[in-house]
Amino acid sequence: MNDPKLRRVFVVVVVLSALSIPNSLLHAQTSATLPLMPLPAHVSPGEGQLLVNSSFSVALDGTTDPRIKSAEEQFLDKLSRETGTPFLPSAQAGPPALTIRTAGPGDAVQRLGEDESYHLEVSSSHALLTAPNALGVLHGLQTFLQLVHITPQGFAAPAVTIDDQPRFPWRGLMIDSGRHFMPIPVIERNLDGMESVKLNVFHWHLSDDQGFRVESKEFPRLQEKGSNGQYYTQEQIRDVIEYARDRGIRVVPEFDMPCHTSSWMPGYPELSSGPGPHQIATRWGVLDEAMDPTRESNYEFLDRFIGEMAALFPDEYFHIGGDECNGKEWEANSRIQAFLREHGLKDNAALQSYFTRRVQKIVAAHHKIMMGWDEVLQPDTPRDVVIQSWRGQTALAAAARQGNRGILSNGYYIDLNQPASEHYLVDPMSGDAASLSPEEKARILGGEATMWSEFVTPENVDSRIWPRTAAIAERFWSPQDIRDVDSMYARLAVVSQKLEFDGLTHQSFMHVMLQRMSGESDPEALAVLASVVQPPLGYEREDLRDYDTSSPLNHLVDAVPPESNAAREFNQLAKLIAAGNASAQQIQQARGCLTQWRDNDAKLQPTLKQSELTAELISVSRTLSQVSSIGLSALDAIENHRTLSAELVQSNLATLKAAEKPDAVLRDMIAPAVEMLEEAAGKS
Amino acid sequence: MNDPKLRRVFVVVVVLSALSIPNSLLHAQTSATLPLMPLPAHVSPGEGQLLVNSSFSVALDGTTDPRIKSAEEQFLDKLSRETGTPFLPSAQAGPPALTIRTAGPGDAVQRLGEDESYHLEVSSSHALLTAPNALGVLHGLQTFLQLVHITPQGFAAPAVTIDDQPRFPWRGLMIDSGRHFMPIPVIERNLDGMESVKLNVFHWHLSDDQGFRVESKEFPRLQEKGSNGQYYTQEQIRDVIEYARDRGIRVVPEFDMPCHTSSWMPGYPELSSGPGPHQIATRWGVLDEAMDPTRESNYEFLDRFIGEMAALFPDEYFHIGGDECNGKEWEANSRIQAFLREHGLKDNAALQSYFTRRVQKIVAAHHKIMMGWDEVLQPDTPRDVVIQSWRGQTALAAAARQGNRGILSNGYYIDLNQPASEHYLVDPMSGDAASLSPEEKARILGGEATMWSEFVTPENVDSRIWPRTAAIAERFWSPQDIRDVDSMYARLAVVSQKLEFDGLTHQSFMHVMLQRMSGESDPEALAVLASVVQPPLGYEREDLRDYDTSSPLNHLVDAVPPESNAAREFNQLAKLIAAGNASAQQIQQARGCLTQWRDNDAKLQPTLKQSELTAELISVSRTLSQVSSIGLSALDAIENHRTLSAELVQSNLATLKAAEKPDAVLRDMIAPAVEMLEEAAGKS
Repeated sequence: MNDPKLRRVFVVVVVLSALSIPNSLLHAQTSATLPLMPLPAHVSPGEGQLLVNSSFSVALDGTTDPRIKSAEEQFLDKLSRETGTPFLPSAQAGPPALTIRTAGPGDAVQRLGEDESYHLEVSSSHALLTAPNALGVLHGLQTFLQLVHITPQGFAAPAVTIDDQPRFPWRGLMIDSGRHFMPIPVIERNLDGMESVKLNVFHWHLSDDQGFRVESKEFPRLQEKGSNGQYYTQEQIRDVIEYARDRGIRVVPEFDMPCHTSSWMPGYPELSSGPGPHQIATRWGVLDEAMDPTRESNYEFLDRFIGEMAALFPDEYFHIGGDECNGKEWEANSRIQAFLREHGLKDNAALQSYFTRRVQKIVAAHHKIMMGWDEVLQPDTPRDVVIQSWRGQTALAAAARQGNRGILSNGYYIDLNQPASEHYLVDPMSGDAASLSPEEKARILGGEATMWSEFVTPENVDSRIWPRTAAIAERFWSPQDIRDVDSMYARLAVVSQKLEFDGLTHQSFMHVMLQRMSGESDPEALAVLASVVQPPLGYEREDLRDYDTSSPLNHLVDAVPPESNAAREFNQLAKLIAAGNASAQQIQQARGCLTQWRDNDAKLQPTLKQSELTAELISVSRTLSQVSSIGLSALDAIENHRTLSAELVQSNLATLKAAEKPDAVLRDMIAPAVEMLEEAAGKS
Repeated sequence: MNDPKLRRVFVVVVVLSALSIPNSLLHAQTSATLPLMPLPAHVSPGEGQLLVNSSFSVALDGTTDPRIKSAEEQFLDKLSRETGTPFLPSAQAGPPALTIRTAGPGDAVQRLGEDESYHLEVSSSHALLTAPNALGVLHGLQTFLQLVHITPQGFAAPAVTIDDQPRFPWRGLMIDSGRHFMPIPVIERNLDGMESVKLNVFHWHLSDDQGFRVESKEFPRLQEKGSNGQYYTQEQIRDVIEYARDRGIRVVPEFDMPCHTSSWMPGYPELSSGPGPHQIATRWGVLDEAMDPTRESNYEFLDRFIGEMAALFPDEYFHIGGDECNGKEWEANSRIQAFLREHGLKDNAALQSYFTRRVQKIVAAHHKIMMGWDEVLQPDTPRDVVIQSWRGQTALAAAARQGNRGILSNGYYIDLNQPASEHYLVDPMSGDAASLSPEEKARILGGEATMWSEFVTPENVDSRIWPRTAAIAERFWSPQDIRDVDSMYARLAVVSQKLEFDGLTHQSFMHVMLQRMSGESDPEALAVLASVVQPPLGYEREDLRDYDTSSPLNHLVDAVPPESNAAREFNQLAKLIAAGNASAQQIQQARGCLTQWRDNDAKLQPTLKQSELTAELISVSRTLSQVSSIGLSALDAIENHRTLSAELVQSNLATLKAAEKPDAVLRDMIAPAVEMLEEAAGKS
């Protein structure tokens, strides 16, 4: 039992637990530390707490929007799951613990800018939630759920008074069902997650080069030939819309055009600008396939198609995409080139602009407001068109100055594996947008996190969306000056756990994937390695290996979350140590971590070769060990006030820089922190 | 880092991993160790393995039963989940890796005794599955899925030839949706689990004192007043039946009568023998409420009701329960007593027998064969009535001698928290049944595991059913002489993991429950305690605390599996040590376990008081520590060949016996093993 190898795994468990469990939050009673996300606009703490035990019940008062009854059922269902206590509507006796008072009905179709405010008072004897309509009720109930936590007296919510309303009216999450199909249960559990953090727009990217995902009755070959059988029926779509509406969420469909349209063409090749053969795309990236904007029959097609979809999706907004046309098919088609000359269209952008104007009229004729990505904005674009900006605040501000409303997505691309802190600090009103006039500022409606799906599957998509999207949701909901990253991470850990209670699998999926790739029931050492590596940032993954739609996403890179909590917390320790501000206990924690990571390799190596999926980790594990050894030597030097020689430091830094390069499509997240230690150890 | 407390948690991880991961199985190539469950009737190992990579595809040959196409889709879906590789029907090119050849169609409604055999050949280049009908195809595909495992070359199935068919035609799982309602997704994922281990009857217990769970259009007050809103619509029932059929599973409904009927009465009090008030029961156990067998109008009611349900459920068999009548309401009702005298019925049993005869005629008139629990069997019971025996093989054999067919459930009550080994060794053909004539033996159709739901919720029900029901499934399918418990446990661990891949949550639910009850994101020390305690055996839980339908099942007893693998494996070690047959390494393993369990208390105590749900574990944790200390002293004595004094041994054994008594409704599973060590240490 004194084998040093056996001693070390637990060390990191202790260290990381100590860092990552915000115990103070879980047992908190003050407003500053209430584990709420997004933080409400106004919070006043009270005295005592309201017990949530078997006798807890709800009373409804005021208007009778059917969503209120459904909200009560969902609330009790979530409360049951989060407490393990069975609550049934109407099954409890006695005076109600929570009264919900709704002033009036909401709109028949949830509308952008509807009042979403609520007022929540919790005392030790009773809770009262009041709201002008069902939307406020839905949001207030989510706040109440976040207040509930276990105490020595049982589950309880602290006494508090909250007045709350959102900063932005458009708070969205886009899910790309085109590239990887996401089954209905995946969509529904993510709508549950959206509701938890008060997001109110589900932007559903429903067609792309790799798949057309909606049943069209007007043009059935769209799904028959464009989806490999993976599409949503109209009945399923209607169910999702109702499911979303019951959670205070609008559903905005996107059918991307005129490009990203390869999957339309196998069924309807006449739409295409190119000669074919037309196939569902199996490659990622910007492809050549594009609709032919010059053919009148295509506008007739789109009129019928958009008419059908406008009836299916009740929301006032209709997204036509419009991004990333490379124009190659247009340039190669002499008939299209002749059209450009005839109509005085000077380039591809002008041709797309022509297309967009035509489509915008069709969308408007079907009583919808068009949305599109940056590319659809032209000087003559009608003022009601809403721009979704992947380009950033400068483009967004330009649209606002021109009179168009817009939402920001640049900075919220959750497929790019950035840390929560980076997304969190991106503000739609910063940069160029900060200098807009009040009237122009009002045109910035909010933003959307975008879950592009090249590298996600139904199995791991939750882990790419959550918990980081909760931090983005706070940016869209809470006052602009709420920007404390440490507070955000502490609350994010609590919210993340609640999201798992509610059915998301962003934490639990990993164990299953590690089991599968190792063939072992308890792949402990693999989990240690997994805890300190991350997927590549941005679009680098596509440069590292060749991927297409049939690539199995079952490697370690697919199983690890986009952000390593262990590495982030170790990095904080290393910063303190390098700055000479660490306590003895913190240095000991860092040593514990590094020792475990160094010694993990010896435990892991014998098993890696047994599986094709883990064999690629042989050098990844070895590198982690090497990096950790360097870190331990640096720690020794720092503790003993020795200065490492410049030559050694230089050589070690070279090793560490090399370790930062992706291996097996994974980034070693410890190397940068060890570089800090090494540099500190080299200074006298 | 040399703090001994920090050193020890990992010890048990190592020890238990070493014991519980059947690595040899996962990478096995010989028939004896193929991780199949149930084991096939005949297995011949081959040479090499068939790779299952992105180019894997399936070809269908022969008959076109729609279930075959659906089977292919489900198979590829499961294979995708188990390998993380996307497989779509028809999306793969190239020659098929697996050919499925089906000789003919199956019956329109799956029938008891239909041929379920299949033949599976896997070589390094190709696999061929042949079967007489869709049922064999479904079973053969599950066998293929179990063969697939990760190898250095990727996922692969070993070359093998299998000829297989079941021992018994009736291999069932009963789920009680009456006492705790089980939502459709829970039912469906358990049907997936049943399919995986070749169970073919889903016996759905749909009404009981605590709830009436099916929509009746004839008598809508049954669900309206009898379910608290928790019932299945007829559309949902039809979906489940289709879902089950696609998995080779019959659905046999049970409507328990004339007793266990409290939930019928709020809507239709005229059915009752008692004066009311009539309410859905909130207590468990045998209650007084019973239908009035003397009122003609009740048979008219049942005729209409059974007619409606007979049309809804296509299976040939219809279960009317018939268990546990205490007769109190009959005795208290003077009109009923007068009826008994008039009709010469000498007691309650005779009255029930009269009722059963009447109901049996109704069931038969609707073209169904009646089933019931032991109590329905009378000398004049029609020969086609099938008896489900909770009493055991003696009662089953008696029924068979009388000419009635029967299935065994005694010994398969998975709600009673027995170890898998005990259920596994129960054989429908043992005891009295072993001496039946061949003709009589043929009347024993198989058996059913029964998941009574007093103490299960949608959250933990999977953990009560799985993986133990896989061992029971092997009893029903595999040849009678397959009884090796060690082999069973080794294969069970692999199957258990695959069941999680397929969507069951019997392993993963626990972490979420421990998080919730502790309020911590990584309740490591609580997990250590959880790993060595078990729920009480049999019906003892009801004697320890007061429970009713509103009791939250969110305590540690609800989160731990019915069988502690850690304790079972430690018990094996202790046996070897006590017998003097342990290696030095095994003694060291045992010491590691005991040290961890002893020291866990110090880590756990500070957190237990923070939650009402964990406060009850203060003494449980302390006792484990105490038991482990005694075990460590005993180990010391054994290793050093010292004999402990008789007084000390007697005192320690008293302590250990006391530790065996349930505390916080939990059993300490280490104490019995430590008793073995203590006794060994007391012998010179």
